[in-house]
Amino acid sequence: MRKELEHLMLSPIEWHMAADGPVVRMLDQSRLPHEVVWIDCRDHQTVAKGIKELWVRGAPAIGIAAAMGVALGVQPIRATHYEEFARQLKPIRDTLAATRPTAVNLFWALNRMNNVVQHHKGQPVETIKSILIKEAQAIHEEDVQRNRAMGDHGAELIRSGDAILTHCNTGALATGGHGTALGVIFTAWENGKQVKVFVDETRPVLQGARLTMWELQQNKIPATLITDSMAGAFMKKGVIRLCLVGADRIAANGDTANKIGTYSVAVLAKAHKIPFYVTAPTSTIDFSIANGDKIPIEERNPDEVTNVFGKVRIAPNNVDVANPAFDVTPAKYITGIITEAGIFKPGELKRKLGGKKT
Amino acid sequence: MRKELEHLMLSPIEWHMAADGPVVRMLDQSRLPHEVVWIDCRDHQTVAKGIKELWVRGAPAIGIAAAMGVALGVQPIRATHYEEFARQLKPIRDTLAATRPTAVNLFWALNRMNNVVQHHKGQPVETIKSILIKEAQAIHEEDVQRNRAMGDHGAELIRSGDAILTHCNTGALATGGHGTALGVIFTAWENGKQVKVFVDETRPVLQGARLTMWELQQNKIPATLITDSMAGAFMKKGVIRLCLVGADRIAANGDTANKIGTYSVAVLAKAHKIPFYVTAPTSTIDFSIANGDKIPIEERNPDEVTNVFGKVRIAPNNVDVANPAFDVTPAKYITGIITEAGIFKPGELKRKLGGKKT
Repeated sequence: MRKELEHLMLSPIEWHMAADGPVVRMLDQSRLPHEVVWIDCRDHQTVAKGIKELWVRGAPAIGIAAAMGVALGVQPIRATHYEEFARQLKPIRDTLAATRPTAVNLFWALNRMNNVVQHHKGQPVETIKSILIKEAQAIHEEDVQRNRAMGDHGAELIRSGDAILTHCNTGALATGGHGTALGVIFTAWENGKQVKVFVDETRPVLQGARLTMWELQQNKIPATLITDSMAGAFMKKGVIRLCLVGADRIAANGDTANKIGTYSVAVLAKAHKIPFYVTAPTSTIDFSIANGDKIPIEERNPDEVTNVFGKVRIAPNNVDVANPAFDVTPAKYITGIITEAGIFKPGELKRKLGGKKT
Repeated sequence: MRKELEHLMLSPIEWHMAADGPVVRMLDQSRLPHEVVWIDCRDHQTVAKGIKELWVRGAPAIGIAAAMGVALGVQPIRATHYEEFARQLKPIRDTLAATRPTAVNLFWALNRMNNVVQHHKGQPVETIKSILIKEAQAIHEEDVQRNRAMGDHGAELIRSGDAILTHCNTGALATGGHGTALGVIFTAWENGKQVKVFVDETRPVLQGARLTMWELQQNKIPATLITDSMAGAFMKKGVIRLCLVGADRIAANGDTANKIGTYSVAVLAKAHKIPFYVTAPTSTIDFSIANGDKIPIEERNPDEVTNVFGKVRIAPNNVDVANPAFDVTPAKYITGIITEAGIFKPGELKRKLGGKKT
């Protein structure tokens, strides 16, 4: 039984050739699920703003946005020589690189765009500009293919009847399409497996409540929204069979930075002997850092905690607030990492994938 | 150094003799911290509504409110015989008993009021009515005394410089005054110990963000607001030395029902070897139930999760939501239980306190 999943065609970010020039079209996810608003970015500064303000979020989608931001940003450059082009490219790249520090896909995508530029050093500037557009589109397309491959690998872990806990949003919205951890669930569902999903609301930005619940609802997959604080109680009840989360950066030893709260889910899963899998493309693995202690953790605006949607203040004025956007789950809590190249134990990453240029 | 703590004189519920008759005056905590609104309840139905809708909350405060509700509800009874009085008392008690199922203090207080009635069977009805008012006031006063005693015992566990994690609100607002777990922190602070508090916001109703942060701010005690999902990450950082929470019902074996999310904090504390203490008066211990599996858990309105303050919807419409108000922490995760009679290991409760009529 293959179910209809039209929603899975959704891509939250697109390169679009408008009559008056190229645009990067972004679904403004900060307004979901109440409003479906697409924003046309006509310069790289707007793309950078979109990344920073979470119009687009999710490690793979941030990478795609950054690549498209470079492709968009270079179009107005009126350089005749490569050196002048490279000089003008640098601040574009710097602006995009300064948006969010934790997700390695951002830097991976910027490096890949940079490599393309260097590789075509001898070509006319206009040619390089076209090639950069093609490269950004390729990064997007490859992401969807990788997600499909992750879905195929990961779905093998899922049995019909399973209840799966997930944290944050790792679906089509977080990627070029289909998703990572949520993509695994989508593939299992497409393959006819009856699953049920427990969705952590994921404070403070509520990606679980707003985005994951929306994607699951669009696809008619049974899902129950819980607060982050309920995950332990439902594990204790014995109703959760598997935990699936995404990743923003994975260190060489398998330590994984992901949305704040992931670490708690992992510790709770271990205490209840529930398998805990990370799903991420190999581009999320940063072999340049040995372990999770070295991953920079973004501290975001306290208003995200104290003002829900910027509309309702939930705490007294002038209080001290912590708002780390991510935490690091040590490898010992991770049962396996689902990638497009297969499923690996954290300890296997270096040996099996570390040689490859990712 | 004894610090000024005027705020600790706060009682969130008071028996008040107005010109036109007695009232139970409640601080409407559902509007805190933005509005400080006191509501005068002139009948027991309004008191019951206040308990149900969380104008007053916190196990000890619920007990006091229920006792005052009985005292208020009996005043209009125009019975000449005890039997007629007892007949009219029953629906008042039933209405108050039906408000919230988990906190045992509610039933403890109703039983105590009932025992007083039975004990004075031979007295004129008007005398019994007066005695019930005095009993409700005694329950209130004794609660504050017990909280002070808990504070004295618990403060011994705190060293100057400690950072303490707490969940939900267990301060003056949750009790007749001073508080249970937060009361321990207040006493330590009064005794000159420099502490810092990490406050879980406590979704869905945000008692931590709204109430605990407000109480700590009023008392100028350093505090940092975090989302519930951050507790694990801060424990991992090594910045938390102690966890202090309250209780809504403690089973004979020490298993403790408390605000949803408490169980996760306890599991995380154990994983990080951080002491985890429950603070509650002995009236919270229910020796009639052997273990936590028998504690009824209140399932509340899903809107508490999906609509923050009833103002901002954070999820798509028509989604499935779970909203258990409490979870049960097994005794094995609890380092000790701080009561007015001293600090006990969960396994000691029955032997050391089980004989007493609580």
